[in-house]
Formats: sequence, C-alpha cells, structure tokens
Amino acid sequence: MSDNKIEEIQELDQSRVLQSWSRQKNKRNNIIIKSQGVKFTDQKGREYYDMSSQLVYANLGHKHPKMLEAFNQLSGLEIVATGFASSSKSELAEKIIDVAPSNMKKVYFTMAGAEANEHAIKIARMVTGKHKILSRYRSYHGSTFGAGNLSGESRRFQVEPGLPGFIKFKTPYLYREKLTFSDELDYTNYLLSELDKQIQFEGPEDIAAIFIEPIPGSNGVLLPPEGYLTGLSTLCKRYDILLICDEVMSGFGRTGKWFAVDHFNVQPDIITFAKGVTAGYLPLGGVIVSDRIAEYFDENVLMTGSTYSGHAMACHMGCAALNVYHQEEIISHVQEMESVINSRLEKLKEYKYVGDVRNIGLFSAIELVKDKQTKEPIIDYGQDYGKDLQGHMSTLLACLLDKGFYTYSHESCIFISPPLTITKEEIDSAFDLLELGLTQFILDHPSLT
Amino acid sequence: MSDNKIEEIQELDQSRVLQSWSRQKNKRNNIIIKSQGVKFTDQKGREYYDMSSQLVYANLGHKHPKMLEAFNQLSGLEIVATGFASSSKSELAEKIIDVAPSNMKKVYFTMAGAEANEHAIKIARMVTGKHKILSRYRSYHGSTFGAGNLSGESRRFQVEPGLPGFIKFKTPYLYREKLTFSDELDYTNYLLSELDKQIQFEGPEDIAAIFIEPIPGSNGVLLPPEGYLTGLSTLCKRYDILLICDEVMSGFGRTGKWFAVDHFNVQPDIITFAKGVTAGYLPLGGVIVSDRIAEYFDENVLMTGSTYSGHAMACHMGCAALNVYHQEEIISHVQEMESVINSRLEKLKEYKYVGDVRNIGLFSAIELVKDKQTKEPIIDYGQDYGKDLQGHMSTLLACLLDKGFYTYSHESCIFISPPLTITKEEIDSAFDLLELGLTQFILDHPSLT
Repeated sequence: MSDNKIEEIQELDQSRVLQSWSRQKNKRNNIIIKSQGVKFTDQKGREYYDMSSQLVYANLGHKHPKMLEAFNQLSGLEIVATGFASSSKSELAEKIIDVAPSNMKKVYFTMAGAEANEHAIKIARMVTGKHKILSRYRSYHGSTFGAGNLSGESRRFQVEPGLPGFIKFKTPYLYREKLTFSDELDYTNYLLSELDKQIQFEGPEDIAAIFIEPIPGSNGVLLPPEGYLTGLSTLCKRYDILLICDEVMSGFGRTGKWFAVDHFNVQPDIITFAKGVTAGYLPLGGVIVSDRIAEYFDENVLMTGSTYSGHAMACHMGCAALNVYHQEEIISHVQEMESVINSRLEKLKEYKYVGDVRNIGLFSAIELVKDKQTKEPIIDYGQDYGKDLQGHMSTLLACLLDKGFYTYSHESCIFISPPLTITKEEIDSAFDLLELGLTQFILDHPSLT
Repeated sequence: MSDNKIEEIQELDQSRVLQSWSRQKNKRNNIIIKSQGVKFTDQKGREYYDMSSQLVYANLGHKHPKMLEAFNQLSGLEIVATGFASSSKSELAEKIIDVAPSNMKKVYFTMAGAEANEHAIKIARMVTGKHKILSRYRSYHGSTFGAGNLSGESRRFQVEPGLPGFIKFKTPYLYREKLTFSDELDYTNYLLSELDKQIQFEGPEDIAAIFIEPIPGSNGVLLPPEGYLTGLSTLCKRYDILLICDEVMSGFGRTGKWFAVDHFNVQPDIITFAKGVTAGYLPLGGVIVSDRIAEYFDENVLMTGSTYSGHAMACHMGCAALNVYHQEEIISHVQEMESVINSRLEKLKEYKYVGDVRNIGLFSAIELVKDKQTKEPIIDYGQDYGKDLQGHMSTLLACLLDKGFYTYSHESCIFISPPLTITKEEIDSAFDLLELGLTQFILDHPSLT
C-alpha cells in the first residue's frame, strides 16, 4: 500500500468516522495491511501477535483458507428475507444445536451479541409473563438500551435513566473479597444465600430471568467458585426463574469447551452468542433457546424480529467456521494449549504489579495492582474508558505493543484471548514479548502512585 | 435443488430456527432457489416479482453482477477491530457524507437500523445533556429496547414497561383526519401548534431530540403535508432540540432522492440509515451526524460502541453498492419510474376496497378499507401481527402471491417498494399481476365484515 493511500485512509478515518469509546481529536488509527494466522502487520511494517483475536472474535485466526474459500461462495447465495428458509440458515441452526447443551432446541439469529441479549430479554419476558430481570455488577452485555441496562459497569451509564425492573447482584470475585471464607464452596454458599434473600426482596413471582456471563469477559475473566453455577441453576429452578447465559465471548471454544456452561454441567434456558460463531469473518449472533421455550412459541406469537435475522451470507460464514472447528478439532486443541498458557501466566506472578492471573482455555486476564499486599488496583475503578485516557494501563499497553504484543485492557486487567488456532511455539514467543514489555514498564515505573 | 434437499432445508428451518413475528407451529417457509434482478423463483418453480425488495433493502435487485464481484473481493480484506482504520470503512464514510445533506460530517457505523437508532438516542443525550426523547405514533424504529421504545405502534409492547422520558406525538395522516382543514398548510399549522404545546408541557429544557421517520414506512408511507418538515425543523431549532431522521427505509434513493429529507430542504442533526446502503448484500447500518455533533466529540468521549462497528467486509459491500448507485444513475432512474408507478397506483383507486394510494419515488402503500365512504379499515388496528394471523390482509396477500406478485403488508396497507433498478416494463407487468390478484380477492369477497 502506497504512503499516499495510507495517508488518505487515515485522514478519512479521522475526518469521517465517529470512533467508539473515544475522544475524536488527534485520534489517528493504525491500519492492518497484512495478516495471517495469529499475526498482523501495520502500515509501518511492524508485526504483532494478535493476542486478543481483535475484539475476542477472530477465533480461527486471520486469513484462514477455508474462510476465504467461503467468501468466494457468497455470490452463489440468494438474498432472502427472514420469512424464507435458506440452506445456510437451516444448516447453521442445526450445527449450533448440535454443539449446544442437550436441552437446547432452536436458534433465533441476530447480527451480534448486544442484539442477541436484547431479544433474549424479550423472549424471557414473553415466556414467563414476568418483567424483572436480574443481572450482575462487573458484567458487560452490550451498549444498546436493553443490553446496556443488563450491564453492571460504567459503560451502561449512557443508557440511563434506565429500564424499570432491571436489578443487579454481585459477581463472585474471590481475589478482591474482603470477607474470609474457609474454601470456595463456603464462598459459594454465602453468595447464593445472599442472592436467595435478594430474590425474596424482589419477589420471585416478578422475576423473569437471571442473566449472567458464566465467566465475565471484559470485567476480568472472573471464574466462578466451586459449585456456584450449579447452585445458581438450582436457585433459578426453585423459583421458576429462567437462567440466561451470555456466551458472546466465552462460546465456541474460547474456554476449551463449546460453551463455558459445559464446564459446570449447567443447562441454561437460554444462551446468547456472537463473535466466535463466524470467527469475525462476518457479523452474526443469536439466541439459543431450550425445548421448553421453543415449545411455548409453537402456540404463541414470537413478538420480535429484525431485518437481517438469519442473513444468508452471515449464516454461510457461520457454517464455514463451524466446519473448521470440527475438522481442526479446535476444542481439544484449546484444552491442550490451556496448560501452556497457564504455566506462562503463573510465571508472570513473579513480576512486580501483577496481582492475579486467571485463565480457562485461552481466555485470560492479568490483573495489575500498585501493591501486591494491599491489592490496590493500578487505576481507580471507572477511570478507564478504554482507548484514549492517559494512565498506567495505557502506558503498559503501549509497552506491550512496542514489543509486538497486541491486546486490549479494561479497568486494571490486560486480556489475553488469542486465536484458538495458536500453537505452543506461538504462545511462548508471544509471552516472551509480553514479559519484555512488562519488564520495560516496571523499569520505567519503579513505583506507582 | 433436489426434493430431498428442499425437504431437509424446510424441515430444519421449522425445527431449529425461531421465526420472527410468528407462531411457530405448522410454519413451513418457502425457499428462494433462484433470483435475478426484480424476480425470484421458489422451490416449486414459481416465479415472483419481488415488489418489496425482500424487506425493503434489495434496492439494486438480486444477483447484481457488480455486487457479486464485490463478494469475490472480500477474501483480500483484513478482519480489523473498531480501533483500526480500514480502506473500506474510510471510503464508505466519505461516500455517504458525499451524498448526505451538506451539514453532515461523520458516520458511526452499526450493523443495521435498530442498532443505529439505539446509538443515535445515546449520541443525542450525550451532546445535549438532556434525556427526554419525542417520537411519533404510527412509527417503527426497530425491536430492540431503545429503538422499540421510540416506535409508536404495537410492536413496541414487548419492550415495556419502557424507558422513562420517551414521549409520543402524532404523525400527520390527512386521509384519516377527522377534523377538516382548508388545505395542507392549514393541517400543518394545526399539527405544529399542537406539538409546540406538547413541547411546553414536557419542558423543552429536558428534550434531547425529536425522532421521526420523515416518511413513515411500514406504518403506511405517510407523506407529510406541505411545510410540515420545514416547520418541525424550525420548531426544533427554536427550542434547541435535535432533529433525528430515521431513513432506514427511505434512505439511499428509495424516494427518488438520496435521502427523504432532501425533498423538503431540511437538514436534520442526525440521520440513521441501513438497508439500502448495501442493498441487503450484507448487514450494515449507521448514524450520520452533523458537523456540530461531530465537533462535540472532539473533546468529549463518545461513550458507545459495538464489536462490529465498521466491519470491513460489510463496508466493502456498502462501497460497491454506492458505486452502482452512481454508475447506474439510480436516483434519476427512480425519479423517472415515479410517474410510471403513480399512474398505475392511481388506477387502483377504481377498485373496490382500495381506500387510498400513496407514493414517493418507488415507496408506495395501498390502503385497504371495507367501505370507501366510511373509510373503515379492512382490519381492526393492532390485529395484524404480520405473517401468520388469519384475516382479510393475509387472504389478499395470498391472492397476489398466487398471481406472482410478492410483497408484505402491515395493518391495512400493502407496500410496494421494488428494487430501484426496476424498468417501466417490469412495473407494468407486475401491476398487471397485482390487478389480477386484487380482482380475484374482490370476486371472492363481494362484501367484507
């Protein structure tokens, strides 16, 4: 790409495109001019490991030959409204149900995760006839009004004053728990008993659903303590409350299972998904519903819809992606890579400012603190709006980027979620760069205030 | 396609896909197995005129060679997160601003129309620091929680109890107005004076935006009376309220101008779009903001975002579509076809049960009544949930379909919005079929109760 062309793309990006989560002034975005597998090259010719799979969706890496082949098949497909059946929509729905928990029956397709969560709320209210929705602090479900009101962090403030009946409870977070517990199960029992009380206070007869990320993603890969999800599921059944799991990030192999709930033998009533289903090659998302919910709509009108529900081209890319997941045995590969990444993460704990590391499959967070004893977060809560505020996290990210390690952060965590196709050698090389960047940051900042 | 394959696709569509706006039982969807230009063929080998452009998005018709060519270029593009610039995103933003009203400056990309409206509400609230949003009865802005709360018809009930501060006012609808007015201008003055009072009652200092479809689509192609939009714009300026125009259906040539507002010399602060921008070949939408709004975010963080904002592949198809609009001079072609369709619509008024016809460009509604004198609607308001309820409208649609005329209805209107590439001959042939279908319906129903 010529220098003039690069200049033109960047100039128009700055003058014509409104950039998410940012101040626009002086924002000059880089361009990816080449990519392959787990790496990409920017306009300066610098190569990076894509250790976040862009926004946690490029699960099959860049320029996967099977996915490129699928692009070239799109011109043979028909553009069809939602009221028609199509080969790719039917096939993808079947492929998804095939890998979903065994109680799952049907798929409602959307274009991405936030929209999937919007429709899931509506479905839960229609099926139950109840209106309250419980979700958790330290969660992110999207930025539209329904999904935003589910979210339990500062990115929801712009959709407030919010929807009536959206209530929050606490996400398990043992690392930052002030109370002491004898073990994980003790912590779980405490949390579930608190939640049980809250359900009483809110009135179980008015609660349609409990909506969770089984493993919250951008809020810190917060792994649930032992027995938590099973207990939560039992609680939901006791009060006839639907359990809805947002697996937009965690679905499709990210955690080493098809869905994160598979780790816990939990069968939710609804699962929402996006990202990994197409590995980002086209936008697609959806809502998977249980047999019980599917049957409700046999006789009752599903009062929701959208223009591009089940867009044939997007579904085609979903089919192609799922074929690759199967053919390349991605799920078992992630299970193998888990121990590789775990041992590299464990080693990071020796570094100053690394408070905690958490991982499942290839879904990791590194939590930074000013002081390992006090666990004071490296930045104050709510002070990080992502990309353009100055602070220790952006400095640290810049150090990593400078070494060729690309990823994203949120609050005091750095996230590592590489393409699921990553090899042991690539993990090791990327982590060597991560350690170089971290060392640089520590040298530059002998103490933090 | 073999009979077995057809059977398999339909079977999976029924057993695995949750269908919008429908009861699921006994719902067997047709398959489009071939399409070209303004026509498609179903699995039974029957050919239809696509007189709704599927869901009012296939503006360039089916299998447009330039769009198929664009599909084959996708494999050369990079998958990039929102924080990177890309050639297709930059280029499309510039192409959109190029055809938008002259005060427009930047584009925030989404995946479709509902999501565009969600972000537009957030942007309006951020820029103004005010929270109330006025929108209109007889409008549809999408089915997610923000867009649904904007909507002024029954498809919003599933997102209620709704968002505080969302207030409705009346859409001009002269055909059904009980009061008498000396002329259109008189009607306009009455409506705007009523709205002015409502703004006072709500408190202009709390109203962020007035959100309208300049020409409501699925609520009946309700053309505004003379002077209405200009007057509305003046009212907004007087009270420092943003004017947001939802041009998801009406944008990109549908009305014979790039945007519907171009007919009225109105410059809104925000325009939302989707459908026509890619002519449906991939999902894409967005929010176009004025220079004033763009500048606000130079210094203030735009607190919204989504994973696939400006997806490179979708933007590429948008660029391809806009190239076709220009190369084939689609806008002026629509202007030429307007008189062709108008004269055919006018003729329909001679038919029993046709109460009113309305059109601009290639954006038409035929309103059916039981009795031309009383104007009693052919079905009661709110009794039509689209596809699967039995009633006169579904019977009429079936008559049209039987003759090879495919379109959709909502309440008591049939909509005609063919691909913008349609020729005079094709319009005439399609309308001949429409008249055959209508005649059949009238023969079958000598009177309606």
